[in-house]
Amino acid sequence: MQVDLNADMGESYGPWVMGQDAELLEVISSANVACGFHAGDPEVMAQTMRRAARNGVGIGAHPGFPDLQGFGRRRMHLPEKTLRHAVQYQLGAALGIARASGAEVRHLKLHGALANMTSEDVALAEACYGAALEVMPDIIVMVLAATAQQSAAERLACSWAGEIFADRAYNADATLVDRSLPGAVIHDAELAASRVARMVLAGAILPEEGAPIPAPVDTICLHGDGPTALAIAKAVRARLEVEGVRIARFEGRRGVFAG
Amino acid sequence: MQVDLNADMGESYGPWVMGQDAELLEVISSANVACGFHAGDPEVMAQTMRRAARNGVGIGAHPGFPDLQGFGRRRMHLPEKTLRHAVQYQLGAALGIARASGAEVRHLKLHGALANMTSEDVALAEACYGAALEVMPDIIVMVLAATAQQSAAERLACSWAGEIFADRAYNADATLVDRSLPGAVIHDAELAASRVARMVLAGAILPEEGAPIPAPVDTICLHGDGPTALAIAKAVRARLEVEGVRIARFEGRRGVFAG
Amino acid sequence: MQVDLNADMGESYGPWVMGQDAELLEVISSANVACGFHAGDPEVMAQTMRRAARNGVGIGAHPGFPDLQGFGRRRMHLPEKTLRHAVQYQLGAALGIARASGAEVRHLKLHGALANMTSEDVALAEACYGAALEVMPDIIVMVLAATAQQSAAERLACSWAGEIFADRAYNADATLVDRSLPGAVIHDAELAASRVARMVLAGAILPEEGAPIPAPVDTICLHGDGPTALAIAKAVRARLEVEGVRIARFEGRRGVFAG
Amino acid sequence: MQVDLNADMGESYGPWVMGQDAELLEVISSANVACGFHAGDPEVMAQTMRRAARNGVGIGAHPGFPDLQGFGRRRMHLPEKTLRHAVQYQLGAALGIARASGAEVRHLKLHGALANMTSEDVALAEACYGAALEVMPDIIVMVLAATAQQSAAERLACSWAGEIFADRAYNADATLVDRSLPGAVIHDAELAASRVARMVLAGAILPEEGAPIPAPVDTICLHGDGPTALAIAKAVRARLEVEGVRIARFEGRRGVFAG
Repeated sequence: MQVDLNADMGESYGPWVMGQDAELLEVISSANVACGFHAGDPEVMAQTMRRAARNGVGIGAHPGFPDLQGFGRRRMHLPEKTLRHAVQYQLGAALGIARASGAEVRHLKLHGALANMTSEDVALAEACYGAALEVMPDIIVMVLAATAQQSAAERLACSWAGEIFADRAYNADATLVDRSLPGAVIHDAELAASRVARMVLAGAILPEEGAPIPAPVDTICLHGDGPTALAIAKAVRARLEVEGVRIARFEGRRGVFAG
Repeated sequence: MQVDLNADMGESYGPWVMGQDAELLEVISSANVACGFHAGDPEVMAQTMRRAARNGVGIGAHPGFPDLQGFGRRRMHLPEKTLRHAVQYQLGAALGIARASGAEVRHLKLHGALANMTSEDVALAEACYGAALEVMPDIIVMVLAATAQQSAAERLACSWAGEIFADRAYNADATLVDRSLPGAVIHDAELAASRVARMVLAGAILPEEGAPIPAPVDTICLHGDGPTALAIAKAVRARLEVEGVRIARFEGRRGVFAG
Repeated sequence: MQVDLNADMGESYGPWVMGQDAELLEVISSANVACGFHAGDPEVMAQTMRRAARNGVGIGAHPGFPDLQGFGRRRMHLPEKTLRHAVQYQLGAALGIARASGAEVRHLKLHGALANMTSEDVALAEACYGAALEVMPDIIVMVLAATAQQSAAERLACSWAGEIFADRAYNADATLVDRSLPGAVIHDAELAASRVARMVLAGAILPEEGAPIPAPVDTICLHGDGPTALAIAKAVRARLEVEGVRIARFEGRRGVFAG
Repeated sequence: MQVDLNADMGESYGPWVMGQDAELLEVISSANVACGFHAGDPEVMAQTMRRAARNGVGIGAHPGFPDLQGFGRRRMHLPEKTLRHAVQYQLGAALGIARASGAEVRHLKLHGALANMTSEDVALAEACYGAALEVMPDIIVMVLAATAQQSAAERLACSWAGEIFADRAYNADATLVDRSLPGAVIHDAELAASRVARMVLAGAILPEEGAPIPAPVDTICLHGDGPTALAIAKAVRARLEVEGVRIARFEGRRGVFAG
């Protein structure tokens, strides 16, 4: 049994540093690299990709909204065509920087508000993923498991990997518990680690209440910022290894998840 | 005998339109497409490339400084590493948009102040071209003939094409006559056309005073804006055809220009 | 009887020209000047304000979303505090440029998607107007008549002026007829002029169907782009003058519109 | 005897934090607040100004080049008119945010590469300062003592304050020792403190070699980043107080410095 661990990276910009990329690269197997619209700049991208390649970590393009001040976390209503080309531009830029840096882009993950919006809107998700596939037909699309993102990837018949969160509690319908509720975000490393291990072994999302929800648990989303992020990341990895789960890049699955 | 005609394209941005791209695409054989830093946005890029591809016009990435307000015409002093990654990012973005648009990037031309600076500084030119070649080793670099750009391409042993201007007068040392001097810029279409034809047939830059300067006249730079631009473009093409010169994309040359 | 004619201005950016500012400045009495976030740059702002001042045209700050590519027309969901400071920043910048240009900012109008959103959401409108009033307590807020913008200005007890459109048809509830419906946008200059004159004389919005809606018709919004814009602007002004209505800057009203 | 201590502040941007503003505001008497072009955003500006006002720290606008990625540290060659309006725009924005935040802008300092360029070019300095004075005639211009900035302020007959560095060694001609040379940057807090105290008491720049250079030592530039910055700031303040020098905002001087 194996699973991937992913984290967002390369979110520094110009003189401003963000994240603990060097430390996380020792823990994860896939890195989602910001592409310059919401964070990252060409130099940061190149440095991040070189580091990831050196550590044998899989590299993904992580496009977001063109909104640096808001870090891509503010919902923007772009025409679908505009959005498609914005994804293609960022993915192309990532491919260019990767090729020049001895690295290779193998997956795509949407960032921030764009991720939120596409996890609720299958047509929007299809537009973004379809746009990326026009640039790179064999790219592996990383989707939030059991959301509209997964449906879109299933429809597109592309290669994809399902993702769950290490530090977020789930509702019985597989949506995330609202951040404003107690227990929504898990800060305790051991708690996070044991939950993740159980979900990986079960091949299911385990909501706080209700039955397990079979889900494609291909990769675990770890966070890179905040005081407890690194501790959680390390605890998750350690626990998975203790349970005999190998940490390795996903290879991508195709078609509809059967459960 | 054949020669290429090139023009800058895709310099609109968001709601702002610039240039007469549709008309020029009927005249030229190569289009230099802005890559979003000094002009162009992902949508404009996609539309421009699709049009160019439809017209059988060769497509080039046209990276510039990250300076939208100044249209990349203001000199900026970036560290070489920053500049290299900026070129790679823009070229990558162009490749991404092209692939998704059924188009193909085959050449690279530097824009604006970056073009000016690299035509004076061979190390800077080598840095930019070298960076592009790391992304796409077989790209054809378009250089200002008889400048440091040409020297850089010769040194890099890459594929390149030499360019002269249709509407600028040359000094005896192959530099351009300063714009502030009378006659520096040619506004008369027939005059421009006959000068270009003579230079193409001679395989040389013909300065206002002094001897012909043998030069790699592979492509003629036409302008897309200004009231006389389109008239000059059409006159140049017509005259060349009358003289029996075929208008066709350059294939690129390698090594030192022997004269 | 008098009324104001307003138009958006200073929407060029860097090398990109938009609008027919010089011509419109001969027609209007108030100019809404873009502040650099969705259009306009410091040079364009200065030039626009100098021209307006020279023509005796009242000057307004016209803040919008930080979205140049989208021209501020794409809805963005910013936290209220962010929005407040964005309005203050843009208004302050306009005041700075005005003072240095021998001009004076006297009104504020929200642009694009920000205008749309605040015309539907009174709290959002109050946040934006309240923020501007903190910078300049005697600024005159230009509101879309009979919308949440008007309610916000009424609540804030600030100086305000009500605005109707010259070229848009109204529904019976004072909302605009959807652009996708026939007749929603009026392209005929004489038709626009006669409708405006009737509304100004009636002191009411005259919907396509249904009773007149008494409204604070202090200023008429003219457009600056499109082939018919200037013709409509001139026809509206001419017709109003024929009807004995004087074209002059609004002075601003206070409190709740009584009808 | 009194002197001012100043530091750059408000250099965070969106989600990216820079500097130790809260700590430094306990030490300094004047804060130079970034205006959104090279760093800072409207929210950061408002927060910084509110904090500074609360601490009784004088507030300055700190305009820079429109170059976020480069943090305004890369030389850009803008036409003088463009530069003038860029300064006016940023100063106006700072005034707007200040007014809404219960704060007051009283001085202006140029940032980064713009500071470097204007310290070498008196015409450029005059253009920038003159532009600011058009917006706010009584603003106090902070100049690098014994540079072209000082000459420009002297010529403009405006209110100004001379500045020296706490952590940089000077040459015999009052220029800074090149950063690449040993001893150019002082990292030892006590050494920096004693040097500053001697210069303040002498009313002169004390170069590493050569005679004292009488200079208008009105304010000391402290840095806010780097591991030793805060220690140097505190040591400088403590030493000055021990020497009986009061730390207080400059009031500005006028005319030519007589020595």
